Amino acid sequence: MAEDKTIFAMIIDDELPSEKLYEDDQCIVIKDINPKASTHVLIIPKSTEIPRLADANESHQALLGHLLLVAGEMSRRLGVDDAFRLVINNGADAGQTVFHLHLHILASKAFDEGSLGKEFG
Amino acid sequence: MAEDKTIFAMIIDDELPSEKLYEDDQCIVIKDINPKASTHVLIIPKSTEIPRLADANESHQALLGHLLLVAGEMSRRLGVDDAFRLVINNGADAGQTVFHLHLHILASKAFDEGSLGKEFG
Repeated sequence: MAEDKTIFAMIIDDELPSEKLYEDDQCIVIKDINPKASTHVLIIPKSTEIPRLADANESHQALLGHLLLVAGEMSRRLGVDDAFRLVINNGADAGQTVFHLHLHILASKAFDEGSLGKEFG
Repeated sequence: MAEDKTIFAMIIDDELPSEKLYEDDQCIVIKDINPKASTHVLIIPKSTEIPRLADANESHQALLGHLLLVAGEMSRRLGVDDAFRLVINNGADAGQTVFHLHLHILASKAFDEGSLGKEFG
């Protein structure tokens, strides 16, 4: 039912407008509409089967690997392959707001300071 | 040459002591020695071929997918599958300190506050 669709599923189905930076048969890449860094894009699988990373199973292994390879490729296309952070928030209490798996790529000239700093080593 | 070995390669080769929380033919999971959250573990591929995520290529797709599946499994074993963050730092300026690909799992009762907060949506 339409009520169950996430905003990402609606974007994938072109029911909401978006600027797709990349698309293939398995995923899309869009800018985060509320960016937390000068570069902040989302890699979103077209599959609606995985609400959270913890919900993935062996049948998704190739897709998950593909998403990380797309992350590397996007970092090159965006010119941030020397310094970026990949983040997956799992669960509302970890900051996940859309329950359709998505990977954040964050990069900023401010990496040395503030909330995108080196705290995770 | 030994000088080229990272600390993770030395741990994988049992040249340094470690408490392995999990191990299979493709990866190990250890606690971060300098934890930034009440749960902070590292998923480390045994392959030494991938210094940074941006260095991965198609030949690593299955391995990368496996690492994300292990992240989900570890989140269940550690009891944090309802709220954790997965992080990959790529490059020194993004906080990467060991140039052997590794995935951070971070979870904390303090997720709602401070540096592990909801800033990445």
